[in-house]
Amino acid sequence: MVETIQWTNEGVVMIDQTKLPHVVTYVTCRDYKEVAEAIRSMVIRGAPAIGVAASMGVAIGFAHFDGGDFRAHLDTVCETLARTRPTAVNLFWAIDRMKKLAIGMEGRPLAEVQAALVAEAQRVYEEDIAINRQIGAHGGPLVPDGKHVLTHCNAGALATAGYGTALGVIRAAVEAGKKIAVFADETRPFLQGARLTAWELQQDGIETTLITDNMAGHFLKAGKIGCVVVGADRIARNGDVANKIGTYSVAVLAKENGVPFYVAAPISTLDLTLASGDLIPIEERAGAEVTHLFGVHVAPEGIGVANPAFDVTPNRYVTGIITEKGVARAPYEVSLAGLAGE
Amino acid sequence: MVETIQWTNEGVVMIDQTKLPHVVTYVTCRDYKEVAEAIRSMVIRGAPAIGVAASMGVAIGFAHFDGGDFRAHLDTVCETLARTRPTAVNLFWAIDRMKKLAIGMEGRPLAEVQAALVAEAQRVYEEDIAINRQIGAHGGPLVPDGKHVLTHCNAGALATAGYGTALGVIRAAVEAGKKIAVFADETRPFLQGARLTAWELQQDGIETTLITDNMAGHFLKAGKIGCVVVGADRIARNGDVANKIGTYSVAVLAKENGVPFYVAAPISTLDLTLASGDLIPIEERAGAEVTHLFGVHVAPEGIGVANPAFDVTPNRYVTGIITEKGVARAPYEVSLAGLAGE
Repeated sequence: MVETIQWTNEGVVMIDQTKLPHVVTYVTCRDYKEVAEAIRSMVIRGAPAIGVAASMGVAIGFAHFDGGDFRAHLDTVCETLARTRPTAVNLFWAIDRMKKLAIGMEGRPLAEVQAALVAEAQRVYEEDIAINRQIGAHGGPLVPDGKHVLTHCNAGALATAGYGTALGVIRAAVEAGKKIAVFADETRPFLQGARLTAWELQQDGIETTLITDNMAGHFLKAGKIGCVVVGADRIARNGDVANKIGTYSVAVLAKENGVPFYVAAPISTLDLTLASGDLIPIEERAGAEVTHLFGVHVAPEGIGVANPAFDVTPNRYVTGIITEKGVARAPYEVSLAGLAGE
Repeated sequence: MVETIQWTNEGVVMIDQTKLPHVVTYVTCRDYKEVAEAIRSMVIRGAPAIGVAASMGVAIGFAHFDGGDFRAHLDTVCETLARTRPTAVNLFWAIDRMKKLAIGMEGRPLAEVQAALVAEAQRVYEEDIAINRQIGAHGGPLVPDGKHVLTHCNAGALATAGYGTALGVIRAAVEAGKKIAVFADETRPFLQGARLTAWELQQDGIETTLITDNMAGHFLKAGKIGCVVVGADRIARNGDVANKIGTYSVAVLAKENGVPFYVAAPISTLDLTLASGDLIPIEERAGAEVTHLFGVHVAPEGIGVANPAFDVTPNRYVTGIITEKGVARAPYEVSLAGLAGE
């Protein structure tokens, strides 16, 4: 299995997800600014992986700190990392976790703080893999045997520290002996499905059919798909789910065709401060991601473009939210708060 | 306005739609086999334009006929053209029309037959433009003022002899003074929306926002879209509509959000021999259209791919079918037969 992100003595090493699948190359981020840039430019992406990267970003932000205003430096590092991408709440969750640890250690010898931050970032990494295994254990039994699973974007090992959320559910179902195959939406504009999901699943020997996003409805109608499983970037208190643009469409088409639609995400993806998905900030990315494909300009010069990177799926389309603590079902206000221990 | 296809003394001249929008180049087909190849390779595409091309293909198939077995030659020409693409019924409609004329003239001097076929092909061309204007006249009033229109694929001047079906409706609404703007789905894998629709509308000065296919649901939910208008490749007797892959998804999402979904197509797109859309043959095209973008291989080597070029939208999602003879509404069994004069 590929390593998505690793803490090393040289810095934070990430597989460059903008280059996959044909070029497998690694980027080493030697300070927090490089980590921030890697998150912004989607060298690393996927809500849980962004959380891990941000943790390591805070740790490396203190690795080179030579003393001075501790709190000012902490704020600078955390704000730089927080300003990269607005939608995935795991980013802010990870930064907050690291920040609380640092503040609690203020005044202690710098080397001690530095070591503690590195250890905490490593813990975020290791916990994430364990969480994904638990998500798989809860979700695997929900996957119908002998049918296709449809997934959108990449919620796999590459979107996490390892194993994956949505793909973790698929992996767990396969490990349990179920005969399933996958339809992978290519996921324009960034092609996470074509470039990352198809690649991951192929390496695992899981039969995968790549389709363009606009084919998902056709295959859902054709009765080929037993369930849909996707990841999430932020889940509001009422169970509304922000995830990669196109997720809402898949959810509506699944419901229309009587196909269960599951969201697989760690508890850290819940944002119980938001009453509904309408309050989740949706990142708008550069239009060039839509108009240019691998350097080729496919649209007429000067055309208007929209590029919202995420959409919000209202809770009524969500059959269940698979977390490491169990599967939440409607009414989500109750079930999510319960799983989150509130 | 661009000329999609033209009969000339050198042959059938078509704008090469595989190269637009950045390379504007023309292909001259000097015999019927070249016309067939141009249809197959999508140098020309769009159901009405394919019909015009096939008409001209039959005409050019006789332009070089030097005598011999008239009926055998006619069959060869017609079968070669018919075997290019299976879904758009306008192809078969046009070939039948030309074939009937030829058979009716069998035994007459060859030069007379040749001239009549050329004249008939020109008539198909001219009638198509007139039909599109009438579709526009019937459909323009249905477009809500002051909102966006969503369209999928290209059902514009480039998909017809000129003016367009779906884009004809939009053009007519704009000509009537309505303030509308367009969301154009890019339409993977062939990118007809990004490359053709955006280009056509930009030339007409109609405000256009290019989006990836998976964004349409997001903007329909956001309440930005007053209606959807698309073309069609074949419409069954019950009003089920085969059109470019992704149309079904847009129709479901439109209905879910209370947005009218219109299909604009000439009567020649009706196939009253088919009871429902389940009987419409769906073309499966090469997987490389999905895995390769402008020569760049974006998916892992050896991955499975599906590439159905069309899908079928059940009649219950269709608010109205706009033809040159008026707007059909449910129950379509009755309304379509009435418009077709049966």
